[in-house]
Amino acid sequence: MEIKVIGFDADDTLWLNMTYFEEIEKSYCELLKEFISAEDLSKILFKNEIKNMDIYGYGVKSFMLSMVETAITVSNYKVSNKTIEEIINMGKHLLYRPVVLLDGVEKVLNILSKKYKLIVATKGDLVDQESKLKRSGLSQYFHHVEIMSDKTEENYKEMLNHLDINPENFLMVGNSLKSDIIPVVNIGGNGVHIPFHITWQHEIVDEGKLKNIEKFVEINNINNLLDIV
Amino acid sequence: MEIKVIGFDADDTLWLNMTYFEEIEKSYCELLKEFISAEDLSKILFKNEIKNMDIYGYGVKSFMLSMVETAITVSNYKVSNKTIEEIINMGKHLLYRPVVLLDGVEKVLNILSKKYKLIVATKGDLVDQESKLKRSGLSQYFHHVEIMSDKTEENYKEMLNHLDINPENFLMVGNSLKSDIIPVVNIGGNGVHIPFHITWQHEIVDEGKLKNIEKFVEINNINNLLDIV
Repeated sequence: MEIKVIGFDADDTLWLNMTYFEEIEKSYCELLKEFISAEDLSKILFKNEIKNMDIYGYGVKSFMLSMVETAITVSNYKVSNKTIEEIINMGKHLLYRPVVLLDGVEKVLNILSKKYKLIVATKGDLVDQESKLKRSGLSQYFHHVEIMSDKTEENYKEMLNHLDINPENFLMVGNSLKSDIIPVVNIGGNGVHIPFHITWQHEIVDEGKLKNIEKFVEINNINNLLDIV
Repeated sequence: MEIKVIGFDADDTLWLNMTYFEEIEKSYCELLKEFISAEDLSKILFKNEIKNMDIYGYGVKSFMLSMVETAITVSNYKVSNKTIEEIINMGKHLLYRPVVLLDGVEKVLNILSKKYKLIVATKGDLVDQESKLKRSGLSQYFHHVEIMSDKTEENYKEMLNHLDINPENFLMVGNSLKSDIIPVVNIGGNGVHIPFHITWQHEIVDEGKLKNIEKFVEINNINNLLDIV
């Protein structure tokens, strides 16, 4: 394969993300423990996030709105204004948080950017992702950023059209089989999977869907990418 | 001038938008009238929207979060859960609302798309804007959509780089002098301003800033665009 463009997922591929979401969800459950157990609350919150996904899309603001909505219903309209304010503040904190790069990221990008066109291909809040890239100090290595409303085959096809390259010359690197690897491989592209130790429930894939997917490589660490390309 | 690409703003250029926001804001003030006058509430809400802009960006979800935050503070932590739920539902409604095209839009796009590459250049929620374009039935006329986190000179320059054209071959059409016309003209591009009868307070420009801006045309209606290009 002759790779011309390498796309990198951002959250949990370049920098920490799920860790922060998990921390917030823990504080959220603590805030509402007089009304409901953490386990039940997490289930209902996840259900509401999925229900709202079509109109809200991915990202922190969507998460904040689903947390407020869920707090109201699980408390049977008894949650205090102070608690709702605290939920909003936790969300804002998530938007301000420091960007912590994963091990090896900068070194690998520095080396690869000299040989390939690198792009960021991510989903979520446009403003949040642009802000994180800026704060990460990694902007210089990337040709540009593609923020996608969802990482579907259709959207990857559009992106490749836009980039004016064939799927076989594109390699996508990311932590989510569902979003970063399967759709790319399905349209004829290449994928390198770097698992992160936490996977968002929404990104977990049915093993059955992986049966026909042979054209991807799994590595433990972004450093191993240098052995492949 | 030889125009190759025409960019269209979306909200209040292709379809109605401010009208819906104004309706929601009116209902919002009505909901909170026991705590504060509509006039004062609108002022505080606007202040909070601007304050949150850096981290939230533009769009409906940002507006929803600012409405909830403002309701809590203006009521001195007394607003009911039912009212907060109603605010969230009003916002959701805004995300589901029908897309109402402005007069002449489809005809003009149909004609121009045969001679020029047309793009949508808009800011706001990625998911909301993509969904509106889909529902509008106008997708077929556009080469692609550029969702910008903000319409600054820097972002327009990046967009033109991306499109691989010179500013003088780009024409931007929109209802906001501040976002659609001034930054484009300042970097050497062309602008056609089509005022909408309502301008969001945030988009109002200081007349002084217009002094050096001569390279744009103002028309009353998108139909007049056919007389210019």
